[in-house]
Amino acid sequence: MLGTDFNLENLGIYEGICETIVTTCKGWTPNAAPMGIIRRKDKIYVRLYKGSKTYENVLAEKFIVANITYDPMLFALSTFTNLEDSAFEQTVHENHTMYSLKDAQSWVAFECMNTKITSEAMVAELVPIHARLNKCRVKAPNRGFYGVIEACIHATRYQLTGDEKYLKLIKAYGDIVEKCGGDAEKNALKKVYEFL
Amino acid sequence: MLGTDFNLENLGIYEGICETIVTTCKGWTPNAAPMGIIRRKDKIYVRLYKGSKTYENVLAEKFIVANITYDPMLFALSTFTNLEDSAFEQTVHENHTMYSLKDAQSWVAFECMNTKITSEAMVAELVPIHARLNKCRVKAPNRGFYGVIEACIHATRYQLTGDEKYLKLIKAYGDIVEKCGGDAEKNALKKVYEFL
Repeated sequence: MLGTDFNLENLGIYEGICETIVTTCKGWTPNAAPMGIIRRKDKIYVRLYKGSKTYENVLAEKFIVANITYDPMLFALSTFTNLEDSAFEQTVHENHTMYSLKDAQSWVAFECMNTKITSEAMVAELVPIHARLNKCRVKAPNRGFYGVIEACIHATRYQLTGDEKYLKLIKAYGDIVEKCGGDAEKNALKKVYEFL
Repeated sequence: MLGTDFNLENLGIYEGICETIVTTCKGWTPNAAPMGIIRRKDKIYVRLYKGSKTYENVLAEKFIVANITYDPMLFALSTFTNLEDSAFEQTVHENHTMYSLKDAQSWVAFECMNTKITSEAMVAELVPIHARLNKCRVKAPNRGFYGVIEACIHATRYQLTGDEKYLKLIKAYGDIVEKCGGDAEKNALKKVYEFL
């Protein structure tokens, strides 16, 4: 159930899968990674695959922050590497030290409850405990932005499997980025290609 | 060149192709259709294909309004049919009667200059003359929303050519909508399938 104090729509969390950048920490080291936060009616949850830093941190701390941003470079960088320390900011709330992204439009901090662990993944229910609305920006939908997100997803799959079909998909989405993106999207795509 | 009074970023018009819903009118009948507004540095333009209502209206009135929205149903409906009159609102500014979408987060009205007409299309430079910022909403990126936009684009191509490859693409994007979308995106996808 949602915390009664949180209007998740106002914070940007709508039904379906929200493509966020999740920040976690273990000790004093923050980590960022793109992650889908799943909202179905009043239930929010996340599925984390074994082997990732996020998985390890959530297992230890039972806590994540979901950051909402339309900055394609943040998606590209955090897919392949950690962000620089200067990208994060720290908030302390009721004994929780939480790291979020400075440039997020908004973020929601969740406690992870009822975690279920299978051989491949962990599913955790998310209960919001703190949030911030930093700044709201109107931005027309850009197919190039979404092309960067798809390219990042397929790049992750390529790195996990080595299957070349993913390279073709990255190229197809790269073409959409080149056609429809602005400089921000094109630079993010370059970064994806650099990491492959 | 941009009008000096307009900060187009604040209104949501960034570099690249902005996926907007363009409203035009001829006489007193407003029309809405999804359209990419192209911004490269300080130049904004639009390419309109012959045979569309938008083309006809721009040819007559040399005027368009670009509406920014993340409502997937507005994209689905305006791809295939006109919106109901109640979806529009009217503004009069310096002798121009302009129609915009009530539910747009923002809209920018442009005069169409230096129109170039080829056998297939018209390219017009856009000069902003009026704008409104209605409401700003934070919403996490949703792959299902973009899936609806892609499905609408391929549906238009399918209707123009009858080429069945577009049906396969619509189905592929439909799968993303079913997986990642909320009810808004799923209902919009149903509407796309109804019109095919």
